[in-house]
Amino acid sequence: MNGSGTAPAVPRPAYRRLSVEQRRSQLLAAALGLFAQRAPEDVSLDDVATAAEVSRPLVYRYFPGGKQQLYEAALRSAADELEQCFAEPETGPLTQRLGRALDRYLTFVDQHDAGFSALLQGGSVVETSRTTAIVDEVRRAAAEQILLHLGAPEPSPRLRTTVRMWIASVEAASLIWLDENKQPSGASTSAVPQALNSSPELSTSPPSPGTAGAAPRAALRAELRDWLVDHFVALMTATAARDAETARVIRAALKLEAHDGPAGDFARRLLPVVSDAAHLL
Amino acid sequence: MNGSGTAPAVPRPAYRRLSVEQRRSQLLAAALGLFAQRAPEDVSLDDVATAAEVSRPLVYRYFPGGKQQLYEAALRSAADELEQCFAEPETGPLTQRLGRALDRYLTFVDQHDAGFSALLQGGSVVETSRTTAIVDEVRRAAAEQILLHLGAPEPSPRLRTTVRMWIASVEAASLIWLDENKQPSGASTSAVPQALNSSPELSTSPPSPGTAGAAPRAALRAELRDWLVDHFVALMTATAARDAETARVIRAALKLEAHDGPAGDFARRLLPVVSDAAHLL
Repeated sequence: MNGSGTAPAVPRPAYRRLSVEQRRSQLLAAALGLFAQRAPEDVSLDDVATAAEVSRPLVYRYFPGGKQQLYEAALRSAADELEQCFAEPETGPLTQRLGRALDRYLTFVDQHDAGFSALLQGGSVVETSRTTAIVDEVRRAAAEQILLHLGAPEPSPRLRTTVRMWIASVEAASLIWLDENKQPSGASTSAVPQALNSSPELSTSPPSPGTAGAAPRAALRAELRDWLVDHFVALMTATAARDAETARVIRAALKLEAHDGPAGDFARRLLPVVSDAAHLL
Repeated sequence: MNGSGTAPAVPRPAYRRLSVEQRRSQLLAAALGLFAQRAPEDVSLDDVATAAEVSRPLVYRYFPGGKQQLYEAALRSAADELEQCFAEPETGPLTQRLGRALDRYLTFVDQHDAGFSALLQGGSVVETSRTTAIVDEVRRAAAEQILLHLGAPEPSPRLRTTVRMWIASVEAASLIWLDENKQPSGASTSAVPQALNSSPELSTSPPSPGTAGAAPRAALRAELRDWLVDHFVALMTATAARDAETARVIRAALKLEAHDGPAGDFARRLLPVVSDAAHLL
């Protein structure tokens, strides 16, 4: 009936052409996209089917355990991706290596926004000992990478604990950062106008919604990154004051740092703060 | 038949004599005792009834929601107790106020051991958005107390975030501390003998099981406390290098610190560590 032999036929549904592995990846990607943007409570299997442009029974064929199985598989896939963020060549000053890994980590956090918050804040309906174990595995992988770069694969208890404490504090900062991204500047943090509290270039709060584009987001991410690197140096140095192995590690690391690098910048900004504390020495 | 008029009669079951409020408190105390020592999964309503020396139906009469309701009520009660730990007079050097509050907090953690770990590690069957909200309320109360003592009830975003990051790192350290209390010294932390890693008096790892009495536990708790105070000073000082309000707060706080107090001790222990970093200034 159609006179044109070259006109495209109505395409058969795309999913018939994918291999089992491709289909599984496609469903996982659709699920991860949804779980990244909403709390798990607010994602249904129908949503996943719609996002992947397949039928709900097809989703069940691949994930017979339903939403819980899909969530855990998506989390597993996100965890693998996040662990890739930590890989970094073992050359150059440590603060710069850490800064690059943090850049990748914070970009990941930014992209997985609501899902990251729901996962780490706990109390979610899909949280189980298995999801907790996956999150803990990522934390362990991050700690191992840091200890490797510090040249301390078999660390003293204090050194290892310090690294894990810093990772916990980074998670806390990431959650606050995501939380404040969603609100007008300073609204969630204080009744006092932002300008009274800190100079704009030092604030971690983003501009008001509607003005925040990709460039400001990247700048805010860089500020947070630099601050977290400062905290790492501060915590390690504090532990070095009580732990011989940490002292050895931090002294070796400081030797690699440059006058015009992050550690030099930090040291010079610290001077005026500690100058009033001479009575303590 | 009993010739002695002064011999005690067989007592009627004690629970008949308690008021509703007393009975509820008694059941809660029994539940809290069990939830403190075991993961919620490993506590049954029968266990609570046995510990309180009452019948299982009586427990249900007071907590018709069963274990979940009992757990949430016990958590609520533990949270109130924990918030009391943070109260501290606003006099004297801040490091000493913080040290006393940490002493009480770490004693609480020590006493609630398994329950504290299960609660904070997540993935527990009794974890809900309500239990998460109770834990978050305790964190907020701790942060508010600290900001009050710092004289910054309306803090800059960075100052407030720093306090919350430190609290997150204290939780991480507490969990590791509890975890290692249950294992032979250093076994969970490193393949290298403890003695090679740090001097015994600086280690947070306890002596081997069986040798740990009240006195060593108290000493280990004091070591952890002092270390956490150091970290607080370090994080605040690091943030002060980027945030004007934090700088104001930390300078005022350092003026109150004594040469022979925790901050003085910390400052002098830091000197040899940073002495190699002169090239950064």
